[in-house]
Amino acid sequence: MSIACLEQDFLVFLKEINVYQSIIDIIEVHQITDAPLGSVDSYSSIASIISQKHLELETSKKMANFIEKLSIDEVYYQLSYVTQKSLEICIDTFNKNKLIDKDEYAKYVKLCSTSQQKWEEAKRENDFSLIAPYLEKIISYKKSIIEKFKHNYKNPYDVLLDEYEEGLSVEVIDLLFSKLKNEVVNLIKNIKKSGKIISADFLYSHVPAEKQHELAKKILCNMGFDFLRGRLNKSEHPMTGGIFDDVVVTTKYKENDMISGITGVIHEGGHGLYEQNISSLFKDTPLGILNGRCALHESQSLFWEYLTAPNIKFWSNYYSQIQKMYKPSLDKISLEQFHKAIYRLNINPIRLDSDPLSYILHIIIRYEIEKDLFNNEISVSDLPNVWRQKMKEYLGVDIQNDQEGILQDVHWFAGLFGYFPCYIVGYAYAAQFYSIVKKDLPDFDEILSKGNLQEIQQWLKSKIHHYGSSKAPLEILKTVTKEKPNSQYLIDYLYTQYNKIYSLSSN
Amino acid sequence: MSIACLEQDFLVFLKEINVYQSIIDIIEVHQITDAPLGSVDSYSSIASIISQKHLELETSKKMANFIEKLSIDEVYYQLSYVTQKSLEICIDTFNKNKLIDKDEYAKYVKLCSTSQQKWEEAKRENDFSLIAPYLEKIISYKKSIIEKFKHNYKNPYDVLLDEYEEGLSVEVIDLLFSKLKNEVVNLIKNIKKSGKIISADFLYSHVPAEKQHELAKKILCNMGFDFLRGRLNKSEHPMTGGIFDDVVVTTKYKENDMISGITGVIHEGGHGLYEQNISSLFKDTPLGILNGRCALHESQSLFWEYLTAPNIKFWSNYYSQIQKMYKPSLDKISLEQFHKAIYRLNINPIRLDSDPLSYILHIIIRYEIEKDLFNNEISVSDLPNVWRQKMKEYLGVDIQNDQEGILQDVHWFAGLFGYFPCYIVGYAYAAQFYSIVKKDLPDFDEILSKGNLQEIQQWLKSKIHHYGSSKAPLEILKTVTKEKPNSQYLIDYLYTQYNKIYSLSSN
Repeated sequence: MSIACLEQDFLVFLKEINVYQSIIDIIEVHQITDAPLGSVDSYSSIASIISQKHLELETSKKMANFIEKLSIDEVYYQLSYVTQKSLEICIDTFNKNKLIDKDEYAKYVKLCSTSQQKWEEAKRENDFSLIAPYLEKIISYKKSIIEKFKHNYKNPYDVLLDEYEEGLSVEVIDLLFSKLKNEVVNLIKNIKKSGKIISADFLYSHVPAEKQHELAKKILCNMGFDFLRGRLNKSEHPMTGGIFDDVVVTTKYKENDMISGITGVIHEGGHGLYEQNISSLFKDTPLGILNGRCALHESQSLFWEYLTAPNIKFWSNYYSQIQKMYKPSLDKISLEQFHKAIYRLNINPIRLDSDPLSYILHIIIRYEIEKDLFNNEISVSDLPNVWRQKMKEYLGVDIQNDQEGILQDVHWFAGLFGYFPCYIVGYAYAAQFYSIVKKDLPDFDEILSKGNLQEIQQWLKSKIHHYGSSKAPLEILKTVTKEKPNSQYLIDYLYTQYNKIYSLSSN
Repeated sequence: MSIACLEQDFLVFLKEINVYQSIIDIIEVHQITDAPLGSVDSYSSIASIISQKHLELETSKKMANFIEKLSIDEVYYQLSYVTQKSLEICIDTFNKNKLIDKDEYAKYVKLCSTSQQKWEEAKRENDFSLIAPYLEKIISYKKSIIEKFKHNYKNPYDVLLDEYEEGLSVEVIDLLFSKLKNEVVNLIKNIKKSGKIISADFLYSHVPAEKQHELAKKILCNMGFDFLRGRLNKSEHPMTGGIFDDVVVTTKYKENDMISGITGVIHEGGHGLYEQNISSLFKDTPLGILNGRCALHESQSLFWEYLTAPNIKFWSNYYSQIQKMYKPSLDKISLEQFHKAIYRLNINPIRLDSDPLSYILHIIIRYEIEKDLFNNEISVSDLPNVWRQKMKEYLGVDIQNDQEGILQDVHWFAGLFGYFPCYIVGYAYAAQFYSIVKKDLPDFDEILSKGNLQEIQQWLKSKIHHYGSSKAPLEILKTVTKEKPNSQYLIDYLYTQYNKIYSLSSN
């Protein structure tokens, strides 16, 4: 068979694999946007059968055969760039998955499914002991995976981190988080010391969901979201999903909270723009799927939600319209009051109800616990107390019960270890990108105040999005910022931002 | 291998096949409810790859093997009822599909896809000649299929009819339609002769979509639709789709038409109830999928839309609420005026804009044309004129152009021949069922006026729905009504109904 034909066959095979991935994504969106309660088992069962088929194809003899034939030097160097890069990802996936015992893995998937249900009960009953044995088993499985791969990594926990963000490690994160943690703790203390209270009651006036939706669509459109290849829907929790040509961004509007549904769209919109702006050359290949770059993905949502939108110029473009649309709730509220209320410090035991500053400490706590767990420094039974201690120490919060403590998030009870730190690593990346875009677009503030957000999006697209999975996250960061991960940009940003909001006398 | 194990393996295989069917159904719903324009090709491509996989499984060696082993008498008689009946359907599907040339079929599917696009252009340009060559090719493929199977049928066109409704034939339909056509033509003449004009302007007052949706949900709930295993969404055209535990009913609300979105929900709700009430024993088997029973399916939607809802008692339960919800549009309109306006005669060149009486003739025209086409009595080039002649003769309508004539429906240009007659065959079945339910539930009118529609649904479930595909449509009809297809019940119903609405002096 000619090399051209072999390459063609490989691409057709990749397309087939991609169809299975798309189906998993379609079912996820389908389930999340308004599926009835009675369909949970059916959809889970379909998704699980298709996931298995997907895994079978990725680790099939057919794939092994393609890898073998296409990897030969004289073949490899005649392949297109897209095929070469796709092949690299296929090899990586193949090698990782072939070490996984399929039966053990199937058992583990079932365990996670049961554990999630048990978690709901434990949370309802406020009883950690109900879920602890499941968590033990999940961690024990994760440790068995670590055993298989740890020879490639410095720290055992790196095995898990690398799954969600290629190249992420304890070394990188410790460097990022150690100074960041101290500075955030310090900044929060300064704000508290200032004694300034920002009033925000008016944000919780009644605004019909339809009005909020109208505003959200307008902002999303200005950000450059392509409604010919995507949509904005509603769901219980904001999320981004869908397929290459139908990126689904969702949010939840609360009628007694005029802003959280909107900031949800700004955040998810950032994810959606990343998905929509992958080069069309990568469609139907693994380069078009953003796996193993959760932190980079998060940098794109936080770039908008935590760095761009918090600029008062962003809201200045919309405020008179918002006042009209939300009439009469904001009639007597100035733009400055509105802006400060949204971005005030709002410490809360619940991560998802926290503000952009204290949120950082919520994540750092989770990171430290995960690291200690997988380095055998703490055990499952220590978790509730460790949680309480850290919440008190970093955030000054007294945890009343495990419902608002260790049991608040499903992640760990669903097997997601190594995922949490991506939020703040992504936040740090976003601040690095932000420092560059402000240089590249010197009229950045004017762009915001005119609502020309697509100009910013064009910059993100050309610097980050269009690469899809063809470049490693750290490579993209390096290319754009000429730097390694560095939290100083985030620290500087936070001081500037909270100085503006709270007019702090000094750092 | 023991028989029990063999049976178990077969059921697991059926579940796998069913997953592919579910995915096709999920994608359909996903596409129809609000997918962006740019995603059309992606979804079509995914659906086509999955349809191919589905067909491959249905005609696979593995299936042949199961059929061979399970059909042996001493095995067969030890199987459960569900397995036996499922096996029968699998054998039927296998035998039909093995005669189909896969390459020819793939070409035909592509032809239909192109033809549908061409049809849009031809309709826009009002130029039948643009689409005629494609239609020729589609018909020629259909005739080649007929050639393969016609030895099993009396009339060549029966091959196509049987695909959509098992056991349906020209003989059955001619018997049903011949008297029906004359009586409907006669009834319309009587109505016209009476000179009575029913005013209906108020139906086209502005009512917000959300109000209509609220009313539609209420009616659907009363009908017994299970919102734990289904949902009511919006789409460009009303439809019913989804999977076993998530039946999706959709409609389109027009803000200047207060009723068509609601009657759309009543119609689709009838389909939805059928899908929701198949015995749960049949889940994940071909018995849980209502293939080859389009007329029976249509009987369930028309039972509600054209027979139950047109009873004034149906609306009497809702009317004071509707007046409040739709305030002030109906303030001066009595229940009787409202009811008559909805069900007045409303002859229109467009099928979808027609009333329940003249609709019958729209379908009969299409049936006669299809029958003549596949019996070589007419050719493609005759179509526009034959259409005009029949519309003039049966409905007294002068067709101004092909847009409102031969080009109005996509069906034929998408390869759907044999489908149209199911609408009116189903209508006749519905009238037969209706005559029985009114005997079985003597307080039928009171049930309606109290809105206890679930009592009617319970009857439909026990007599029809729960069988799924385990009984042939004509067998169900016979069991419930003790009769063969018989249009006299529909004719009687129509005379009674239009006498009520138009107070005609005599038949």
